[in-house]
Amino acid sequence: MSPTLGVIGGGQLARMMVAPAVSLGVDIRVLAESAGESADIAVTTIGDYRDAAVVLEFAKGVDAITFDHEHVPQEVLAALVAAGVSVQPGPDALLYAQDKLLMRERLSALGLPVPDWARVANEAELDAFLAEHNGEGVLKTPRGGYDGKGVRIVRSGVEAADWFTGGDLLVEELVSFSRELAQLVARRPSGDLALWPVVETIQRDGVCAEVIAPAPDSAGKIADVAADIATTIAETLGVTGVLAVELFQTTDERLLINELAMRPHNTGHWSIDGATTGQFEQHVRAVLDLPLGATGCRDEWSVMVNILGGPAEGAFTDRYGHALEAQPTVKFHGYGKTPRPGRKVGHVTAGGDDLEDVVYRARAAAAFFEG
Amino acid sequence: MSPTLGVIGGGQLARMMVAPAVSLGVDIRVLAESAGESADIAVTTIGDYRDAAVVLEFAKGVDAITFDHEHVPQEVLAALVAAGVSVQPGPDALLYAQDKLLMRERLSALGLPVPDWARVANEAELDAFLAEHNGEGVLKTPRGGYDGKGVRIVRSGVEAADWFTGGDLLVEELVSFSRELAQLVARRPSGDLALWPVVETIQRDGVCAEVIAPAPDSAGKIADVAADIATTIAETLGVTGVLAVELFQTTDERLLINELAMRPHNTGHWSIDGATTGQFEQHVRAVLDLPLGATGCRDEWSVMVNILGGPAEGAFTDRYGHALEAQPTVKFHGYGKTPRPGRKVGHVTAGGDDLEDVVYRARAAAAFFEG
Repeated sequence: MSPTLGVIGGGQLARMMVAPAVSLGVDIRVLAESAGESADIAVTTIGDYRDAAVVLEFAKGVDAITFDHEHVPQEVLAALVAAGVSVQPGPDALLYAQDKLLMRERLSALGLPVPDWARVANEAELDAFLAEHNGEGVLKTPRGGYDGKGVRIVRSGVEAADWFTGGDLLVEELVSFSRELAQLVARRPSGDLALWPVVETIQRDGVCAEVIAPAPDSAGKIADVAADIATTIAETLGVTGVLAVELFQTTDERLLINELAMRPHNTGHWSIDGATTGQFEQHVRAVLDLPLGATGCRDEWSVMVNILGGPAEGAFTDRYGHALEAQPTVKFHGYGKTPRPGRKVGHVTAGGDDLEDVVYRARAAAAFFEG
Repeated sequence: MSPTLGVIGGGQLARMMVAPAVSLGVDIRVLAESAGESADIAVTTIGDYRDAAVVLEFAKGVDAITFDHEHVPQEVLAALVAAGVSVQPGPDALLYAQDKLLMRERLSALGLPVPDWARVANEAELDAFLAEHNGEGVLKTPRGGYDGKGVRIVRSGVEAADWFTGGDLLVEELVSFSRELAQLVARRPSGDLALWPVVETIQRDGVCAEVIAPAPDSAGKIADVAADIATTIAETLGVTGVLAVELFQTTDERLLINELAMRPHNTGHWSIDGATTGQFEQHVRAVLDLPLGATGCRDEWSVMVNILGGPAEGAFTDRYGHALEAQPTVKFHGYGKTPRPGRKVGHVTAGGDDLEDVVYRARAAAAFFEG
């Protein structure tokens, strides 16, 4: 029997696990919330991932369960574990990807470098933190945020009154950074671990726009520190599969941990085409506890540019006639999603020896999909 | 709407179209003969590809129909074309991949280099051909042969008596060759065409065992002649999608055309990992009349080794624990098929700068699956 992997969630991350699973000869099954989602081709169950009965039924016969997103409730995860299902990453690790307050507490306790932060229960506590941080801070809902949602810059407690309704919030200092980086690592349940090179990520409106791999001028100390941070987190929290650590490189040359994700991550999409083993293949291997593949770069430079849906009608692939013609060396990835403004509908990756040329080709390819 | 591709046949070639289709954002649907075939994940219809009604129903709503194999009858293809379906490659081209006698007649008429051959209707005609060719020849059934089936070496007409029951046969001279090559090309309906480098193929018992890309010592005249031959065939016969031309390099340094296949081909599997655009992605692009991708090599050398099923029980992937551990840089491909002796169940591809090392790694990886 081929190994069988169950993925909870039918978005583009599940979709991008399909290609390497099929290539490796792994049976992949997806639990989606509704018909026609991005990972449709592998969907075997449509149902609610918050319903333990649905998830337990879906998990019958799989060798491991993994995730397209981090929103599966702890009680559902516990039910899977109790039923003897291999859940990767496990609930004890996922907790820290699900709750940013718990994450900050744990990383601080481990002595890892994080921005100044506080748990705040009301406007007065927030004002107290802001007073100590030049009157500004980044306020985050501990749960459910992504792509800039659940995050806002605040300059007074009263500004945030509408958010103090559902429990404590996380406030962090507004970090003065020169750039953002991401360090991805994959880890097997048996402990083996493999790191990709640290990458530079360029965000626009809180959403990943471009990634350069490896991060320019990162060889040496920056790469070593990023690798140490990700390794420590993966090992200490017992993360399995891909862990993404988003980092700030501060203007005074420190690295501070911004966010964690315990799944393949947008900042690792370059690796599909740019690394010997891409993040989705590695995730499939890791969560099935198969040996990890080599993570070296296939090109000196890889540049990934996200395609966000615009106001235009029609499918992502409608632009292929011109885009593929103009950029025959660029790799195009479509997620099978209906474009709407700001929605991630695909990405492109270029590779080569000359960073300027690689950036040009990736952006030129992406430009065909704008507007 | 995403482009939709229908594939007739559920074998590993259809399976290997799934990954690039999903990556590109193309909807792929497969018509398989039975449940549980290699391309199972994309199967939407189970039925008989010889039944025009089944195939017409399957083809509703697709942007193009292509093939996992060349066995769809001409009358079924004609029914598709009459119904306005884009059939790629079309019936007029496929004819020459379906019938080796027609292929030899056409290639000879075009003045392309082929081994000496004859159409023979009985033992006496076969004996006459053998008498002019050192008493030996290669006898082939015009239809239905693959992987060494439908091919035998004969030294007298009487030896072949059992084959003279179903119409004329093809006999060819036993070519004295130093090695075998394959030239793959992809062509769009609109005419654009892209060639991969010519490769060396090593056959064992009539089955492709290993491929080295590019073919060593092929730069210059050999590469040029191989490219010219494949281009001429693709353009003259109006082939669309991938065309594979298997060639003999004779001991007197000529290239002779051995076989044609009008679909992705075993001798092109290296390109999945070894070329900027692999043959399955290129086939998907070509048959949908999308612009073709660049076909340059990503590594100086790529070596593909086929995995044939042995007498052992169990799945291909059962050996992954040891194989992936030992060869982290090798790309492993499993076809989700139950192993039986001689059955192609997967392949591995290694890449790098040092051919000796690349061959070693590919063979070492493949060795885990033997016996």
